[in-house]
Amino acid sequence: MTITVLRLGHRPQRDKRISTHLVLCARALGAKNAIYTGIEDPKYEESIFKIVQEWGGDFKLEYAPSHRSILRNWEGKIVHLTMYGLEASEAAKEVQKIDEPILIVVGGAKVPWDVYEEADWNVSVTTQPHSEVSALGIFMYLLDGEKSLNHEFPGGRIKITPNPKGKDVQVEGSKRKGGSAKTKSSE
Amino acid sequence: MTITVLRLGHRPQRDKRISTHLVLCARALGAKNAIYTGIEDPKYEESIFKIVQEWGGDFKLEYAPSHRSILRNWEGKIVHLTMYGLEASEAAKEVQKIDEPILIVVGGAKVPWDVYEEADWNVSVTTQPHSEVSALGIFMYLLDGEKSLNHEFPGGRIKITPNPKGKDVQVEGSKRKGGSAKTKSSE
Repeated sequence: MTITVLRLGHRPQRDKRISTHLVLCARALGAKNAIYTGIEDPKYEESIFKIVQEWGGDFKLEYAPSHRSILRNWEGKIVHLTMYGLEASEAAKEVQKIDEPILIVVGGAKVPWDVYEEADWNVSVTTQPHSEVSALGIFMYLLDGEKSLNHEFPGGRIKITPNPKGKDVQVEGSKRKGGSAKTKSSE
Repeated sequence: MTITVLRLGHRPQRDKRISTHLVLCARALGAKNAIYTGIEDPKYEESIFKIVQEWGGDFKLEYAPSHRSILRNWEGKIVHLTMYGLEASEAAKEVQKIDEPILIVVGGAKVPWDVYEEADWNVSVTTQPHSEVSALGIFMYLLDGEKSLNHEFPGGRIKITPNPKGKDVQVEGSKRKGGSAKTKSSE
């Protein structure tokens, strides 16, 4: 399953951290790339580029001036995460069957009506207010299950090995255990 | 399963939105309450209180000056979400068996070593950088499955009925369909 995430209406001042968390969630759970609309923000792109360099893989973040042409020209299916749509688990079962590229659209403050209309699925992860970041994470997990939590990111400088008791971090071939005096070592 | 979320090191200026998203995620997926440390922030508490009034349930957010006494006096088990811990799915299988209150600790920028030490499980949702918000959402889903997405929130003014094609919102007894001219109606 090839997933692209489209973040609508990014505002550099207000959304920087949420947009960063959103796109990192997309990458960590296996999205191939992300596109954002709203205000173009080279610092945002740069910060994601640096994380990809450090942590590996070939995830890309790109800017698009408008969502319309992306939605209309999308060669595949479109899922729109909203508070109002179809139940997430139900939708995920349908989307799993698709053998085409999936675009997951994640709203900003006000989502234009054409997004609801162009989407093949409007999907709600609970019908309560929470966060586009948790909604995206949960929906990507629903789509791809355990696989979504175990992607490989080749070529990075940093690699973490899961460790129940502390930090086990490899940086460029040299194994560093325990980040600092203030963090518990794995030994 | 009774879940409390502990948010470490809140900084009002920098973290307001992330902390809000985090706590709303906790509530939407069924946490009973949340505690935050760091800088006390009445505006943050007020914004969550208002959402609970509007959307129902009895979720509470409280401030604590230090995480230490909370961890040491916790009558139950403690899960710490980090980038370094045990694999999330593996941990979730163990935590599911517990019949005691669960405290899920979610870090801020620098997590003191005693959190790693006091935690019964240090848990990593992927070993890649993403977001404490998506990590919490995914872990709560792993713990409680479909149930986590279908909690009831009695007493709220607003209720949404899932609708694949638009907005279906009930506000205080009067059914409002389609939020504005710019949003697609459900009819």
